[in-house]
Amino acid sequence: MPTEPGRVEITALAGLPEVRLGDDVGAMVGDALEATPGALPLEEGDVLVVTQKIVSKAEGAVVDLRTVNPSQEAVEWSTKWDRDPRQIQVVMDQAVRIVRQAYGVLIVETPQGFVCANAGVDASNVGPESGDLVTLLPVDPDASARRIRDALVARFGADIAVVVSDSFGRPWRWGITDVALGVAGMLANEDLRGEPDADGRVMRTTIRAVADELASAAELALGKTAGRPVALIRGANPPRGEGTVRETLIPAENDLFR
Amino acid sequence: MPTEPGRVEITALAGLPEVRLGDDVGAMVGDALEATPGALPLEEGDVLVVTQKIVSKAEGAVVDLRTVNPSQEAVEWSTKWDRDPRQIQVVMDQAVRIVRQAYGVLIVETPQGFVCANAGVDASNVGPESGDLVTLLPVDPDASARRIRDALVARFGADIAVVVSDSFGRPWRWGITDVALGVAGMLANEDLRGEPDADGRVMRTTIRAVADELASAAELALGKTAGRPVALIRGANPPRGEGTVRETLIPAENDLFR
Repeated sequence: MPTEPGRVEITALAGLPEVRLGDDVGAMVGDALEATPGALPLEEGDVLVVTQKIVSKAEGAVVDLRTVNPSQEAVEWSTKWDRDPRQIQVVMDQAVRIVRQAYGVLIVETPQGFVCANAGVDASNVGPESGDLVTLLPVDPDASARRIRDALVARFGADIAVVVSDSFGRPWRWGITDVALGVAGMLANEDLRGEPDADGRVMRTTIRAVADELASAAELALGKTAGRPVALIRGANPPRGEGTVRETLIPAENDLFR
Repeated sequence: MPTEPGRVEITALAGLPEVRLGDDVGAMVGDALEATPGALPLEEGDVLVVTQKIVSKAEGAVVDLRTVNPSQEAVEWSTKWDRDPRQIQVVMDQAVRIVRQAYGVLIVETPQGFVCANAGVDASNVGPESGDLVTLLPVDPDASARRIRDALVARFGADIAVVVSDSFGRPWRWGITDVALGVAGMLANEDLRGEPDADGRVMRTTIRAVADELASAAELALGKTAGRPVALIRGANPPRGEGTVRETLIPAENDLFR
């Protein structure tokens, strides 16, 4: 079902089982594609958006809080803000820089270069028997996306893209939106600087954060409570190439808010 | 064509003519819906995303730079960063607070409470005969959305929602994503605090910025260069109610980055 120009379809995939350490996410996404009516055949320009949680679980980017011995600093901070000191210790361990701390939230820079609340450490949707488990961000989310893409390209033959996504807050606005942690088979940003706009006027500063918009669009179909971790987006046709999420990360030396 | 759960469809509407001062955007969007195959009948839960540019033009939120007499401050700043001093003057006039200034960008708080680059003052896609025109943000984007929604509800009878959107940058990440400037017929955010996640665990801090995600999703179908200013999103079913974009705006006193 090829899509017309200006038409984008987002489908939450059916049928992913609970993901466990060592699982082959690419194979599971492939099975889910086969179980989802209308998803196959994949088309060039399709994007699979895979949420962080299942990637982290499969890769073992998980910490059992029962193994964590919180520092004095973590205990004091947690007492002040009514948090679990073991989880705060995990956040502190993941932080290469603390950007802000207030209102019970640590906003930090992670080793991958993301600036986000609580270093992306997350206790929700970890699994049914997971009382003390938290997930970390994948160590190299571009590589995670690439492995999933390689599996899908090998299995289905279509030149598709993959985005690994997570939910981040942002300054100035309440609420979280999904953004890209990693990409494969596409550029994360589309650079329109120097392109003419609809009136033929050269656009001076327009860089579209396409991977982030794909992540947000996928969330509309997936939601937060339904246990649907993967979406297929057809018709968005993101800019092709060997991209990396690093296209989207402002280095600290150019950043006005760190 | 009702959508299944977990399926979202985004359609760029066909056929909007160039928008001029005083135009009835609600009527024009209605005409465009009638000209777009598959768009009608509208369904409860449908969302129309209308980009800022046409709203500002219809409402006269436009400045002719030939009427602007830049201040010494605007001239000095513009000389330093190779900008148009008249446009910088307009930005300064729109700012109730300057949050940061560097790299040729003024990040300011607007009278509506947004924090964004250059106060949302924009010279791109203003129109074919618009060499010296820039658009401002709509004075009250919730009211703009409400007027468009009222017109569409009266014409088509379905209980739909409207989002007025614009493209904003954000700290820490390069590139712009579309966000909501105003909403009508829906809540801007979905507050899931206290709801169980897929494993039955209570989510502590999850507020979905649904209106912003709808804006970003629409941008995937609209793009920046094709002159398509309105998208229909079917299947996202945002939280219903009398919402306002103010749900998403962090007041200065609670903000860590201003």
